[in-house]
Amino acid sequence: MNASEKFLNKFSEGKHVCVGLDTDIEKIPSFLLTESDPIFRFNKMIIDHTANHAAAYKINLAFYESNGKKGIESLEKTLEVIPENIPVIGDAKRGDIGNTAKIYAKAIFEYYNFDASTINPLMGRDSVQPFLDYTDKINFILGLTSNIGANDFEKLQLADGKFLFQEIIEKTKSWGENVGFVFGATKLSELRDNIDLLGDSFVLLPGIGAQGGSLEEIIEVFRGKNFGNFIINISRGLIYLDNTNLFAVKAGQKLEEFNNKVAG
Amino acid sequence: MNASEKFLNKFSEGKHVCVGLDTDIEKIPSFLLTESDPIFRFNKMIIDHTANHAAAYKINLAFYESNGKKGIESLEKTLEVIPENIPVIGDAKRGDIGNTAKIYAKAIFEYYNFDASTINPLMGRDSVQPFLDYTDKINFILGLTSNIGANDFEKLQLADGKFLFQEIIEKTKSWGENVGFVFGATKLSELRDNIDLLGDSFVLLPGIGAQGGSLEEIIEVFRGKNFGNFIINISRGLIYLDNTNLFAVKAGQKLEEFNNKVAG
Repeated sequence: MNASEKFLNKFSEGKHVCVGLDTDIEKIPSFLLTESDPIFRFNKMIIDHTANHAAAYKINLAFYESNGKKGIESLEKTLEVIPENIPVIGDAKRGDIGNTAKIYAKAIFEYYNFDASTINPLMGRDSVQPFLDYTDKINFILGLTSNIGANDFEKLQLADGKFLFQEIIEKTKSWGENVGFVFGATKLSELRDNIDLLGDSFVLLPGIGAQGGSLEEIIEVFRGKNFGNFIINISRGLIYLDNTNLFAVKAGQKLEEFNNKVAG
Repeated sequence: MNASEKFLNKFSEGKHVCVGLDTDIEKIPSFLLTESDPIFRFNKMIIDHTANHAAAYKINLAFYESNGKKGIESLEKTLEVIPENIPVIGDAKRGDIGNTAKIYAKAIFEYYNFDASTINPLMGRDSVQPFLDYTDKINFILGLTSNIGANDFEKLQLADGKFLFQEIIEKTKSWGENVGFVFGATKLSELRDNIDLLGDSFVLLPGIGAQGGSLEEIIEVFRGKNFGNFIINISRGLIYLDNTNLFAVKAGQKLEEFNNKVAG
């Protein structure tokens, strides 16, 4: 099953919420700190209680890289316990010259075997192409990001009147069948204005919860539009709900609640 | 000694060429492949023969990450054998929302203790600031990159007539004292046109050699301008000159030749 099929299967089951495993040693319940690998233990418990309801998992590589070899080990063990039929997004936002992008793509798609990745397109086509060459994978290109800094450059107006992020979406869409986009769930009016530009692309929406985006409003925009190919990522708003040994159970319950909202 | 002082010391010794350790297992001399850690062995030999002449070392993290735990080990061992007085650039081109950028910055500047980093500024100020907060470090922000894809977005013209890369340089310069820029050595006419915009910032220039940039022409632009704060990176054009056990000796000799050209 390729990445696109994995996502489409989940959508067809009414699952659109992705669990972000941004696992931070300083934020996990303290009772886990006596474990030999607290990060992995935390992730495994979250996965055990959310796998039946998750559209996908998203792993932000920063949280693992920052622990060096030990972090890579936690990451590899985590990937092993995610059920094969759930797509996993390697959120790395890489972007480098072609020679190097090829190596990054190999790391993401071959070494770790992620189903999808996030890509920073600033350096242009040759920095993106090595990722697109993995035609069985999905690449979410940064469109308009969820953070306040999105105003600094992504929302600059170009000479032809478009915003930079619109030009990025329009141009990169033509680069491959397996191009999707990151669009901040905090940018509701821009999402409404650009829903037709996004078209039938897969759209990954971070920013619900801790960052202030509203699940209901996002769903409203996508209902009947975009062919339903949207993935709403929730990290902190799911995995850090509780500090007791019920934290994973509560994450699973919350995810079910989110799914019910999506079902409407 | 902070990062800025390390670089300035090297400049004052007439050293402006940075050795890029983009070490690729498929490109190193085959006699090293029987070693337990061929990548580290290769790097150590290069470092032993270039340390007296190098302005800096630049390590592109892609080449190490792609080997998982083993790659991280090669990276850590490499960092240990670089003399303390030579600045080391962690070329990672990271960029993410503030919460995550903080973790990336910690990985680069605390876990690995790099002296400098490269940063992708697309996501704006809050994605860059956590790196700038390490005031004893230097951050090279992507200005105009050396690759052909630089034309796709970096060279887009904005509504006010500027190119995107010019707006990036102008805006980010005001964000901190420790902002430097990446500017492709292949983009000679743009470098000439923007040398005053770069001002006294540290400028890291990749793209000499394999990518087609000319050392002599770059030096000509900087002579008497930019206060001499330029670092020319050479990777493939130095480290892969030879397939025999003389590869590192030849790298050292070539680096001396480059230094002589810089001295003029």
